[in-house]
Amino acid sequence: MRAVGLVTEYNPFHNGHIYHIKQARKITNADAVVAVMSGNFTQRGEPTILDKWQRTQAALQNGVDLVVELPVFMAVQPAHLFAAGALELLNDLQVADIVFGAEHPLWNFANFVEAEEHFSQREFEKFNATYATQFNRQLSNLTGHSLTDPNDILAFSYYKANLEKGYSIRLHPINRLGSQYHDQTITGTIASASAIREAVSKHEAIDRVAPEQTADLLTKLKCIPAWERLYPLLRNVLIQTPLERLQQIYQMAEGLEYRYREAAERELTFAGFIQRVKTKRYTYSRLLRVCLYTVMEITNDQVLQANAHPYLHVLGFNGQGRKYLHQIKKNVHYPLLTKISQSEHDGLINLDYRAGKLYQMFTNIEQDVKHAPVIVKK
Amino acid sequence: MRAVGLVTEYNPFHNGHIYHIKQARKITNADAVVAVMSGNFTQRGEPTILDKWQRTQAALQNGVDLVVELPVFMAVQPAHLFAAGALELLNDLQVADIVFGAEHPLWNFANFVEAEEHFSQREFEKFNATYATQFNRQLSNLTGHSLTDPNDILAFSYYKANLEKGYSIRLHPINRLGSQYHDQTITGTIASASAIREAVSKHEAIDRVAPEQTADLLTKLKCIPAWERLYPLLRNVLIQTPLERLQQIYQMAEGLEYRYREAAERELTFAGFIQRVKTKRYTYSRLLRVCLYTVMEITNDQVLQANAHPYLHVLGFNGQGRKYLHQIKKNVHYPLLTKISQSEHDGLINLDYRAGKLYQMFTNIEQDVKHAPVIVKK
Repeated sequence: MRAVGLVTEYNPFHNGHIYHIKQARKITNADAVVAVMSGNFTQRGEPTILDKWQRTQAALQNGVDLVVELPVFMAVQPAHLFAAGALELLNDLQVADIVFGAEHPLWNFANFVEAEEHFSQREFEKFNATYATQFNRQLSNLTGHSLTDPNDILAFSYYKANLEKGYSIRLHPINRLGSQYHDQTITGTIASASAIREAVSKHEAIDRVAPEQTADLLTKLKCIPAWERLYPLLRNVLIQTPLERLQQIYQMAEGLEYRYREAAERELTFAGFIQRVKTKRYTYSRLLRVCLYTVMEITNDQVLQANAHPYLHVLGFNGQGRKYLHQIKKNVHYPLLTKISQSEHDGLINLDYRAGKLYQMFTNIEQDVKHAPVIVKK
Repeated sequence: MRAVGLVTEYNPFHNGHIYHIKQARKITNADAVVAVMSGNFTQRGEPTILDKWQRTQAALQNGVDLVVELPVFMAVQPAHLFAAGALELLNDLQVADIVFGAEHPLWNFANFVEAEEHFSQREFEKFNATYATQFNRQLSNLTGHSLTDPNDILAFSYYKANLEKGYSIRLHPINRLGSQYHDQTITGTIASASAIREAVSKHEAIDRVAPEQTADLLTKLKCIPAWERLYPLLRNVLIQTPLERLQQIYQMAEGLEYRYREAAERELTFAGFIQRVKTKRYTYSRLLRVCLYTVMEITNDQVLQANAHPYLHVLGFNGQGRKYLHQIKKNVHYPLLTKISQSEHDGLINLDYRAGKLYQMFTNIEQDVKHAPVIVKK
């Protein structure tokens, strides 16, 4: 059996994802589709609109054969680390190909990776712009192109990780479905995940753009998971934890802890808080990720440690996925985890377990301990 | 001017407190009544039903001349430390007398203090009963009496602190108003604070047992401050903080951190949590206090440090109180704080400031920074 890998968040799962899965099969003629998927928090540091089990179910019902969790310490990261983590797992899962959408699938991303080697490090020491802006200034000088679209940035990162780590995965950037894909209103049968989340928050119909079960779940959603709800917890940590410990939080760089603490002391809403923290130097995503690390008290050391010990947490599979798992299980290097026992939650999976406990604020549902993988028969 | 001191919580202020104030004046013929009062959390570790400024206002409108805050690190403590802290402040405030209610005002409390010196320490090393039970077993053997009523226990503690520290304050235990004082239902014009809180939670009338303004505030109260509301914050700290740091929390003794963490992981309500944590060894009050220390991440060291640097935070006064302050201000040993500036909140008053930030969860009102003392003209 030969597998194609997908890097996903499915926040939420929608018709564009079905197209992606079909294209992946068609281009590679693979026997199995393996998705690595963010857990309950996204790359941008937001809680997902549905939990990881619900999103796994949707993926399996719509063409994915095996879903493996991208651990929180790999998922809630800048694009290049998110991409590198996903490729690390897909490589261990022995996929032959990866298919991914890009805004400019015809670009020679491998070329950009080479160009980056000639970048001046000194340019990045200026504090007046985000890292992305500084990166593109240099890329544009060397190649005439800028990486400004999110999927182009991820595409570049896949090429970079594949090259640097010496994986032999074949990479296939593909077109995303037309410009309507970026619209923030729903017009056709394909809409972006963010447009769908926006529609859900306004109680607008989404049944034309997402599979029935996902649309149902979203329509019935009583509270949309959002930072506003977690803010009292974050605020408490920022106010009560000594500054020297806040300084050890992952990515709490360059005196950010003072900004965070002062904003927490002054602001009673998350909207007010994040506005007060924002500077030109950091994107909202970066700041939201630091919020998550802070409320979970995740330190630099913990992230380093965790990344040194990856694992494959199987969230679900169908018959084909089970066969594929059976084929590769003796050859994977990383521990293959299915059901997590009560005693295991202190182990490898600890950060995901704690992220799940935080996510429980929204759903009251236990996320990891004793949760069996989702099995879809097909 | 000569002052009489009162040790108070006023949670909430009620008619029994008015009686107490009048008796204190009558017995001592003092020129000023000085109350040391717990801030926004009580000795038993609960958030107060009204905030410290509202309770100060009530006290000043009903006979108290000067209100000074008992800092959180002195107030949220076992009875003997609560009493010792209050006496330390009242001694520095140079009161000549202290008048307090006791269930058995005719007992010779000084005798009990002497008896305690003959206690066997070995008895306290048994883990099958609370400290109080073990204490009384020994006191009863030596004196024939047991300290089981809360105000008798405090009375004993005042005598003990007064003797041990060598203060020359005159202590006056007085009768509390009849047995109806302990009833949990409201019958006459005097009711216990806990009966009043219970009545407020049931939306029952309390205007016969509390002064008009307090009754008004309580009747309009939208949410009664309670641990249930703070539980998500506590739960997050217990789940996300490394065990070795939980072990450093003040009074997190003898493996309690494992019980607390496990209960937090399993229980979604505070009621469930505290039931799961409870053992014969600890009273609910002790466990609630540890909840507060935990959510505020207050360590042993911080409590030691704070207690080594007491201060007098003036919450309010009337004309007579102002005169008394003027008289003593050059002779007090501890810093006299009135309005706290933004920059001062990291200083001496830091723990109270942080307790106020936690209390802000209930009211959204800033508690300390830039808050001027309540001034009542009379």
